[in-house]
Amino acid sequence: MSTPPISRYPVPKLEDLPGDIRARILAVQEKAGFVPNVFVTLAHRPDEFRAFFAYHDALMEREGGLSKAEREMIVVATSGANDCLYCIVAHGAILRIYAKNPFVADQVAANYRKADITPRQKAMLAFALKVALDSAAIVDADFAAVKAQGFSDEDIWDIGAIAAFFALSNRMANLIGMRPNDEFHLLGRVPRK
Amino acid sequence: MSTPPISRYPVPKLEDLPGDIRARILAVQEKAGFVPNVFVTLAHRPDEFRAFFAYHDALMEREGGLSKAEREMIVVATSGANDCLYCIVAHGAILRIYAKNPFVADQVAANYRKADITPRQKAMLAFALKVALDSAAIVDADFAAVKAQGFSDEDIWDIGAIAAFFALSNRMANLIGMRPNDEFHLLGRVPRK
Amino acid sequence: MSTPPISRYPVPKLEDLPGDIRARILAVQEKAGFVPNVFVTLAHRPDEFRAFFAYHDALMEREGGLSKAEREMIVVATSGANDCLYCIVAHGAILRIYAKNPFVADQVAANYRKADITPRQKAMLAFALKVALDSAAIVDADFAAVKAQGFSDEDIWDIGAIAAFFALSNRMANLIGMRPNDEFHLLGRVPRK
Amino acid sequence: MSTPPISRYPVPKLEDLPGDIRARILAVQEKAGFVPNVFVTLAHRPDEFRAFFAYHDALMEREGGLSKAEREMIVVATSGANDCLYCIVAHGAILRIYAKNPFVADQVAANYRKADITPRQKAMLAFALKVALDSAAIVDADFAAVKAQGFSDEDIWDIGAIAAFFALSNRMANLIGMRPNDEFHLLGRVPRK
Amino acid sequence: MSTPPISRYPVPKLEDLPGDIRARILAVQEKAGFVPNVFVTLAHRPDEFRAFFAYHDALMEREGGLSKAEREMIVVATSGANDCLYCIVAHGAILRIYAKNPFVADQVAANYRKADITPRQKAMLAFALKVALDSAAIVDADFAAVKAQGFSDEDIWDIGAIAAFFALSNRMANLIGMRPNDEFHLLGRVPRK
Amino acid sequence: MSTPPISRYPVPKLEDLPGDIRARILAVQEKAGFVPNVFVTLAHRPDEFRAFFAYHDALMEREGGLSKAEREMIVVATSGANDCLYCIVAHGAILRIYAKNPFVADQVAANYRKADITPRQKAMLAFALKVALDSAAIVDADFAAVKAQGFSDEDIWDIGAIAAFFALSNRMANLIGMRPNDEFHLLGRVPRK
Repeated sequence: MSTPPISRYPVPKLEDLPGDIRARILAVQEKAGFVPNVFVTLAHRPDEFRAFFAYHDALMEREGGLSKAEREMIVVATSGANDCLYCIVAHGAILRIYAKNPFVADQVAANYRKADITPRQKAMLAFALKVALDSAAIVDADFAAVKAQGFSDEDIWDIGAIAAFFALSNRMANLIGMRPNDEFHLLGRVPRK
Repeated sequence: MSTPPISRYPVPKLEDLPGDIRARILAVQEKAGFVPNVFVTLAHRPDEFRAFFAYHDALMEREGGLSKAEREMIVVATSGANDCLYCIVAHGAILRIYAKNPFVADQVAANYRKADITPRQKAMLAFALKVALDSAAIVDADFAAVKAQGFSDEDIWDIGAIAAFFALSNRMANLIGMRPNDEFHLLGRVPRK
Repeated sequence: MSTPPISRYPVPKLEDLPGDIRARILAVQEKAGFVPNVFVTLAHRPDEFRAFFAYHDALMEREGGLSKAEREMIVVATSGANDCLYCIVAHGAILRIYAKNPFVADQVAANYRKADITPRQKAMLAFALKVALDSAAIVDADFAAVKAQGFSDEDIWDIGAIAAFFALSNRMANLIGMRPNDEFHLLGRVPRK
Repeated sequence: MSTPPISRYPVPKLEDLPGDIRARILAVQEKAGFVPNVFVTLAHRPDEFRAFFAYHDALMEREGGLSKAEREMIVVATSGANDCLYCIVAHGAILRIYAKNPFVADQVAANYRKADITPRQKAMLAFALKVALDSAAIVDADFAAVKAQGFSDEDIWDIGAIAAFFALSNRMANLIGMRPNDEFHLLGRVPRK
Repeated sequence: MSTPPISRYPVPKLEDLPGDIRARILAVQEKAGFVPNVFVTLAHRPDEFRAFFAYHDALMEREGGLSKAEREMIVVATSGANDCLYCIVAHGAILRIYAKNPFVADQVAANYRKADITPRQKAMLAFALKVALDSAAIVDADFAAVKAQGFSDEDIWDIGAIAAFFALSNRMANLIGMRPNDEFHLLGRVPRK
Repeated sequence: MSTPPISRYPVPKLEDLPGDIRARILAVQEKAGFVPNVFVTLAHRPDEFRAFFAYHDALMEREGGLSKAEREMIVVATSGANDCLYCIVAHGAILRIYAKNPFVADQVAANYRKADITPRQKAMLAFALKVALDSAAIVDADFAAVKAQGFSDEDIWDIGAIAAFFALSNRMANLIGMRPNDEFHLLGRVPRK
């Protein structure tokens, strides 16, 4: 069987891309050892690419009360709820690495209630899933429930905004049929050499 | 009754904002006659603000097979499905203006199937709503249905990406309790002086 | 574009209607300045017309603990949940007039949780929406929640019965494709002359 | 165990009721041998009682393309979907009698797709259930599907209006906790003496 | 009308069945006076038949904190939620007999909240329905709610396992179109001779 | 962190189990190199254990038109829909091994529509998911759709019965909080030594 396409849409060649996008992609490749498909598939639309990753970085690399692993937990839990293959697999890998835990991504993608995480993290994911699935029903009591676990108002913006950003991301990946790189399936499951 | 807050979060003063954001807001004010609350409420997080509006502009001001009114129709229909008060009211106003039709926004927000729009536009909204509500179930037959109405692959990316972007936008507005400006409720309903 | 039809079914002429129905319609026209389409479209079936408006009046013009504006709020909120264009637009207009508030109908149609209404009214609408969407699940605790806001048993019958009656009304309007009169879209949004 | 109440609300005594309502109830008792609880429980509100039964009779006793048994099938199928105990049991009994079939009510209440009914009746119930559960999504294709089975436009109004009326009726019964008379459970299951 | 088939699949003759299965069926016939269709229709696959009834007996004939009537209540309530005609009708009959109550099966199949059962039994059915409809969401609080009604951990296993087993059973019956025997519709509704 | 429990219920020691169950468990251990938790957790109830595995084997080891990998695909797809962590992880491993494909389990658990499988297998999973999620709605057209892909009636029983059996299995695992063995997460992802 030949390799399946990684997108329904044309995938630009690296050399045809604007310099800033090419530079970003090369930097990722340098760090990860391969180019995650989200970069090359979204590069089909350079302006959207720039906004997407600027938004992503603003949320995922922000300092604050959430650890990097917790931010990825939100991504994996909401992507699981949205049945987004790319995000479950790619961010599952990143979560395993940040959490130094080879099991937590599979747990959170299937059912955060049964994951090996803290009650605080379960409250965080309950809030994130409500934003993902029924945001109009968010009321004061939902804010109170996460605050009771020690999250600040700014932390809650982070939780909700990550869930909201991946509502976009999951839909884009599902729209274009974005395929996860083979590498992600194994990453973080075995000790790195 | 005192005026209700326009966000659960602090709303920055114009003079405290970074120059580029202040400039953007002043430009909108100049054009619209008032500052839509989405600008000042999201300015609480400048980096996210920049990414949000860069993304918005990339999708909504793009040249292509969709008219500006059609892009706004997608916003209003998917925001209706997500019960997002801000987006229904604010983009409803913009839709009325672009479509030069005082009724179409109320129609599309409630039920696009009964709106005074073309079969082509109904197919566009059916696709957009599937992206908004069940994107994992998008299959080739969905692409075929909109192509049969004359939309190109790039048009379909636009339809899906607008639905995806407002999946984010609706969730942010619902999260922070973004309140539509009073002006929007009437805009486009009566002849402009 | 020619005017779209106001019903899938034949719309009787005023002069062909039974005297009592014609009288009712003329009285409404006298008061409102136009004939709301619900009257002429449902007049296709005179016996059902009589029962429909007798039921409507028994519930909406009843004395009791609910104001006229509150009764219309229930109509707008449940019609929003049922995606009924006619009822959202027509009763939205009536609500704006009774509440002397140009914004509340758009708010309640989209998401009563974010409307400028009292906690008592939010409890009333939560009960009404449960009757509209999941009446089999109504239990004692639901009655207790509205009673805690000061509603009597008879008020609760009113709340539930209005939600129930518009469950019928919304379905009839959706069945026959009842189109709201153009006048309703603007009514109550601008000061009356 | 003492007899459970037949309504959450006060049940008027026959002698305290207005003459027209008392006459109606006595007529029913004469015919059925007992007074179905829907009559005495709804008589708590005489004006609503009158409108309710006027509407009921206009739809259920109308001449037209639907037999009496078919009208009751619509009631039982949609009441099953709405989990309305009173209507399933009471109208199930009436359906058994009209259809002279002791099994069809249990079949239609559970799953009309597996009932011993004609393809024409299955199409009728599919349309009725769409009106009951998702009326906003009714489109031309739904009308075409029932017309293909030989139903006229007026028949379709009947199908939809019965589903709409019992949307009201089911919600009222669920609201007040209307209890079916014991007699209904057995009626039509055994040969009448 | 000829008798409708009792399964989409071939129904084996008693004489062609393996001895143990034939013996089981004859024993049931001896006790009940007829052979319930679940026996002959599932006998199409002898190994699955044996496992099915071994599982059934392990759960339904077990000693413990649940009465036989309560076990059947769980079956009827969850089968109602799954719209399984065979199980509603057949186990409804068994429930009527065990409970010596001609009404409770119709009540529980439609809406256990309005059934003539104890608060303890309502808590039991609420737990069973959560297992039937949303088992991933079961958390400690759900266990606590049934324990508060006096159920032991082993009783809760029984409640959940019966709901789980009939999740299988309902799907098999719906898959093969299993038809309830005519006898079940009346059983337990009238005094046995 | 100490090892989390593998069940909410007591887990019997191997030496305390009946001989036939102990033998079965030792045989599995011999073959797999470890004891999957489903065996020891369900052994808490020996009679149910025996029926469960007899049923499992009857369906999963049967000869017929479905390969072993295809049978596991049904398990993984329906367990994904039911958010059952144990079954996704454990049967995902088995699927990877049978299919000799390290990616297919993650694909099928998230969204079979985007998996690297054949159109025939997609039709098989669409049918299985309808049995899992909405079995009452199965009609002739669903049978026709899988038959059009070359499946026989007996194959369709297999597809439906596997979906039905794992409806039970998923609910039991969710009920008792069955934890997948650590080994399963990696199994089939890397070449076996």
